[in-house]
Amino acid sequence: MDKQLEKIRHSASHMLAAAVKKIYPEALLGIGPATEEGFYYDFDKLSIKEEEFGKIEKEMEKLISQNVKFSKKYVTKHEAEKLLKNEKYKLELLGELKGKISLYNSGGFSDLCKGPHVKSAKEIGAFKLIKLAGAYWKGNSKNKMLTRIYGTAFKTKKELADYLEMLRQAELRNHIKLGTQLDLFSFQKESPGSPFFHHKGAVIYNELLNFLREEYLKEGYKEVITPLIYDKSLWETSGHWQHFKENMFILKVDNREFALKPMNCPSHCLIYKDSLKSYRDLPLRIADFAPLHRNELKGALVGLTRVRKLSQDDAHIFLEEEQIESEVSRLIEFTNYVYKKIFNFEYVANLSTRPEKYMGNIKLWNKAEKILKKVLSDKKIKFSIKKGEGAFYGPKIDFDFKDSLGRFHQLTTIQLDFQLPGRFELTYEGEDGKKHVPVMIHRAIFGAIERFMGILLEQYAGHLPLWLAPVQVKIVTVNDNCIKFAESIKNALEGGKIRVELDSRSESIGKKIRDAQLMKIPIIVTIGEKEIKEKSLAVRQDGKVSFGVDVQKFIEETARKIRERC
Amino acid sequence: MDKQLEKIRHSASHMLAAAVKKIYPEALLGIGPATEEGFYYDFDKLSIKEEEFGKIEKEMEKLISQNVKFSKKYVTKHEAEKLLKNEKYKLELLGELKGKISLYNSGGFSDLCKGPHVKSAKEIGAFKLIKLAGAYWKGNSKNKMLTRIYGTAFKTKKELADYLEMLRQAELRNHIKLGTQLDLFSFQKESPGSPFFHHKGAVIYNELLNFLREEYLKEGYKEVITPLIYDKSLWETSGHWQHFKENMFILKVDNREFALKPMNCPSHCLIYKDSLKSYRDLPLRIADFAPLHRNELKGALVGLTRVRKLSQDDAHIFLEEEQIESEVSRLIEFTNYVYKKIFNFEYVANLSTRPEKYMGNIKLWNKAEKILKKVLSDKKIKFSIKKGEGAFYGPKIDFDFKDSLGRFHQLTTIQLDFQLPGRFELTYEGEDGKKHVPVMIHRAIFGAIERFMGILLEQYAGHLPLWLAPVQVKIVTVNDNCIKFAESIKNALEGGKIRVELDSRSESIGKKIRDAQLMKIPIIVTIGEKEIKEKSLAVRQDGKVSFGVDVQKFIEETARKIRERC
Repeated sequence: MDKQLEKIRHSASHMLAAAVKKIYPEALLGIGPATEEGFYYDFDKLSIKEEEFGKIEKEMEKLISQNVKFSKKYVTKHEAEKLLKNEKYKLELLGELKGKISLYNSGGFSDLCKGPHVKSAKEIGAFKLIKLAGAYWKGNSKNKMLTRIYGTAFKTKKELADYLEMLRQAELRNHIKLGTQLDLFSFQKESPGSPFFHHKGAVIYNELLNFLREEYLKEGYKEVITPLIYDKSLWETSGHWQHFKENMFILKVDNREFALKPMNCPSHCLIYKDSLKSYRDLPLRIADFAPLHRNELKGALVGLTRVRKLSQDDAHIFLEEEQIESEVSRLIEFTNYVYKKIFNFEYVANLSTRPEKYMGNIKLWNKAEKILKKVLSDKKIKFSIKKGEGAFYGPKIDFDFKDSLGRFHQLTTIQLDFQLPGRFELTYEGEDGKKHVPVMIHRAIFGAIERFMGILLEQYAGHLPLWLAPVQVKIVTVNDNCIKFAESIKNALEGGKIRVELDSRSESIGKKIRDAQLMKIPIIVTIGEKEIKEKSLAVRQDGKVSFGVDVQKFIEETARKIRERC
Repeated sequence: MDKQLEKIRHSASHMLAAAVKKIYPEALLGIGPATEEGFYYDFDKLSIKEEEFGKIEKEMEKLISQNVKFSKKYVTKHEAEKLLKNEKYKLELLGELKGKISLYNSGGFSDLCKGPHVKSAKEIGAFKLIKLAGAYWKGNSKNKMLTRIYGTAFKTKKELADYLEMLRQAELRNHIKLGTQLDLFSFQKESPGSPFFHHKGAVIYNELLNFLREEYLKEGYKEVITPLIYDKSLWETSGHWQHFKENMFILKVDNREFALKPMNCPSHCLIYKDSLKSYRDLPLRIADFAPLHRNELKGALVGLTRVRKLSQDDAHIFLEEEQIESEVSRLIEFTNYVYKKIFNFEYVANLSTRPEKYMGNIKLWNKAEKILKKVLSDKKIKFSIKKGEGAFYGPKIDFDFKDSLGRFHQLTTIQLDFQLPGRFELTYEGEDGKKHVPVMIHRAIFGAIERFMGILLEQYAGHLPLWLAPVQVKIVTVNDNCIKFAESIKNALEGGKIRVELDSRSESIGKKIRDAQLMKIPIIVTIGEKEIKEKSLAVRQDGKVSFGVDVQKFIEETARKIRERC
C-alpha cells in the first residue's frame, strides 16, 4: 500500500472515531489502524447496527467538509493521562509507553497516535463504512469483546467505486452462498469444518478426481489407498509429533496414542519400504486422495477454504538425484497443462531457497536450487526468489494463481525433501549395486480438493465448465404433451453419459428456463410441439439459442465437449 | 453336523488326549470337544511342534487299531477327585459340577465327560491332526495360555481326503497370501487392521466402485461425500453412543467428545434434514463410500475380512410406506444382477422377523413382513425365516453367498428401519399436504468393499475377471529386437484403456510367461520376429494360445470384454 493511501485510511479511522464519540459519547476508544483493505476502529460500550452507518458517515462527511487539520503534539505521560482520563483502553496502552507521548489532534478529537496522517481531512477522497464485527481487545480471547467498525477509503471516488464493485462481485461469487444456492454442499454443527458434499457437489468432486486419474495414467502415477489412523511412533519418525502435534486429532487405540493423519507422506514411506526397491523402480510416483484431518481453530474455519477434513491431490515421488531435473520439468508441464489448458488461470512462480536452519548436505542443496532455477528458466517461466524461505528439508517451487477478481491463491507446490527418506531408512539398490537413499518430492497440483473447488466456484461465479457441471443439460417442456418426447430425449442423453434433468412441472416455460439459469445449468433444451413434430431440439447454450438442432448431432457434440473438457 | 460324526470327532479327541498323555506324561488335560470342522484338545505343560504330529497320530492309530471300547461310568464327586487328582484343570471343572459325575473310559484313558461317544474306536473311519494354536483356559485372556491341538475326523477316508483337499484349496486361495504375492495390499504395525492398498489393489478397489457408480446412475442413487468425525450429540441421537460406543474410536475435538463414524446412517439423516422434502423427492437414495472405523479387538483382526477401517457400498433409502414393495423388489433385482450376472455366486436368502423387544407400530411391522415375503415369493426366491431375529427397529432380508469352496458369506443386506427417521425428526410433505415420517432402508450389496475383495480373491483364487484384473495384458518380448514393436503395441492398448505392462527384460520367453502367469495376468501377448513381420500378435488367454491375431481386432475385442465386464 502506498504511503499516501495509508495516511488517508488511518486518518479516516480517526474521523470515524471522532464521529462515533460525537453521536455515542459513552463509547470507549480501542485502536484504529489502516489495513490492506481499508481501516477499522474498535469501541467498547457501543451497541449499534449496520443500519446506523449512514448517521455515522454523515457526521464523518461533515468533519471532512470542514477540512479539519491533523496536527501532532508531544506531551508528557502525565499530561496524556489527564487528557485520556476517561478512556480506559487508551490508558492501558499509555501504561506500556515510555518517554514523550505523541498525540494527534483533528478538529476537537485527540488520539494517542504515532501517525503519520494526512495534513487535512479533504485529502480523504472517498470513504465508506463496510461492516460490523466483534474483536477481542488486543486480539486475545481472554479479553473483552469490543465492537469493530470496518471501513475503507481511497484517494478518489472512482477507486472506491471499483473496490465496492469488486466486493459485490466477490459476494456474488461467494462459494459458500453458491454451495447452498446450487445444492452442492452444506455444513452441519455436528462436524465443524468438515463439508457435507451433497450429490451435486460430490459429482464435481468426483469429476475432479476422474480428471486427475486420467492424467495420472498418462504421467505414470500409482494411486494407493491408505489408512487414516496411525500409532504415535510413526509421527515420531516423521517428526510430526514434535512439530505438528497441536494440529492433529489424537485418539486412543489399543491403549496407545494414535493420530488421524494430517498428511500422506509417512503412509507412502511405509508403502515404499514394504518391498525392496531398485533404481529401475524410480521415479516411483505414489498418489493418494486419502481424507486428511487438521485441527484448525473452530473460529478460523471458512467454507471450503479453511477446513478440518480435506483431501489433497497428493503425490510423493521417490527418485534418484539425477532425476530431479527431468521430474521437476514434467511437473511443471503437468501444472501448465492443468491450469493453462484446462482451467485458464494465470500464475506467478516462486522459488524458495535454503533457509538459515537447513538440514542435509549443502552441495545437494546448491545443486538442487540450481536445477530448479534452470528448469524454470528453460521453460521461460518468470519467477521470484524467496530467499531463505525453503523448508529446512529442501527447496521448493510454488505457484500463485490469479483468479478473475485479481486475487491470488497458492495452489500448486513442488517441494524437494532430502530428509524424510533418511528418517524412514528408505533405500534403493543403485546401478552400482550399492544402497542409496532416494530423494523425495512432495507435490500437489490442485492442493486441497475442497479449497480448489471453492476457488473454482468463485472463479466461474458458479457457471462451471460443461464437464464439471453437476447437471449438464436441463430439458424443459412447453406443456404436458411434450413429456413423452422429452423423456425419450433424456434417455438418449443419458445413454451418451450426459448428466441431464427433466423439468416437466406444470409451470410456464419462462419460469422453467429461469429456474434452470438460476441453477447455472450450461445447456437448456426446450421441447415444444415444433420440436416433437420435427424431432429436433431448441438449445440454449453460451448465451445463444439454436432451433431445429438434430438430436444425434447434439448428443455427439455435447459428449465430445465433455470428453475433451472444453 | 450329524450325531454319528459328532461322536466320531469327540471320540477322536479322547484318542488324541490318550496318545498325548502316553508320549508326554507330564502334559495336563484341558478340554476336548468336537467342532464343526473336527475337534481339538487343550493341554498345559505341553511344548511341541507340528513336526511331532506324526508320532502322536501313530499312537492314536495304534489305539484305534486295538479297537478300544468307550464306556460310560457314574461315580461320586469324591471318587472322581481321586481319579483325576493330578489333573488340576479337570479338578477345577469338577468343582463346578454337582451330583453324580459321568466319566468316559477308553482303553486305559479316563476323562471327565458327558459323551456321547462311539461304541468302539474302529468307528473313527479316518482322522488327521491339522494344526497347533494357543488358547486361553476357558477362553479368558486372564487365564493361562494352553496348547491346543486341532484335528479332524470323518466316517470314511474319502471324506477326509475331500476335506483336506478343500483346506489345501483354501490355503492356495488365502487372500492374505495372494495380497502379498500379487502386490495388492499390505498391513503395517503402525495401523493394525487398516489395509494399505498398493497400486494394484487400489485398481481393483476403484474398479469395484466404478462398477457400482455406473449401476447407481441407472438405479437413481445419489452419491454424497461426508465427514468422518462427529460430535457425541449425533451418536446420542442415533443411539450409537448408548449401544455401540465400545466399538467406536473416540477423540477430543473443541474439548468435546467426538467419534470416528462406524456407520453412515446418521450422516445421511443430516443431509436429508438439510432441506425440506416432499413426497416427490421420494424414494431418495443416498449412497456413500466414506471410510468407516470400528474398534475391533486387535487379536480378532484378520486380513481384509475383519478390519478396523473399511468402506461399505452403503446406501440409505428414504421412502413412503407404500413404496416399500417396489423398492425392495428393485433391490433384489439389483442383487441378482450383481451376483448372478457379474460375479456368478449362488445365494440363499433369509428373512428376519419381529423380535420380542421390537419398537414401533405392530401393524407396520406386520405389513412390512408381509411385503418382504411377497416380494421374495414373487421373485421365486427360496428363503428361510429367521423368526424373531430382526433388529428392534425393523425386519430385514439378508443373503448368504456360497463361494467356490462351498463356504457361505453374508454380503447383501436389506434392512427396514422404522425408528431412526423419527429419532432424527425427519419428515416429508405428503400428497395430502401433511407432514409424514419416512421409512428408511439401510442396504449394502457388497457389504464392506475390503471384505468383498478378500472373498473375490479367494473365489477366483486370484484369477480375477478381466475387468477387475490390475494388469489385464502382459506383453513379453522374445528378444531385444522386439522391444520397439512391443512398445507400440503397449501404447495402442493403453489408448484402448486397457491396463498393460511390458516385460522386456533379457530373460527367456518361457521365464517371462511363467512370471506373468504367477501374477495371474489374464492375457499374455508374446512378440517375436514373426509377429513383427506380420504385424500381428500371439495371444495366451483362457488356457489357449492363438497366433497371428490382428492387433486392432484384439484391442477392440479386449476393450469390449472389459466394458461389458465379461
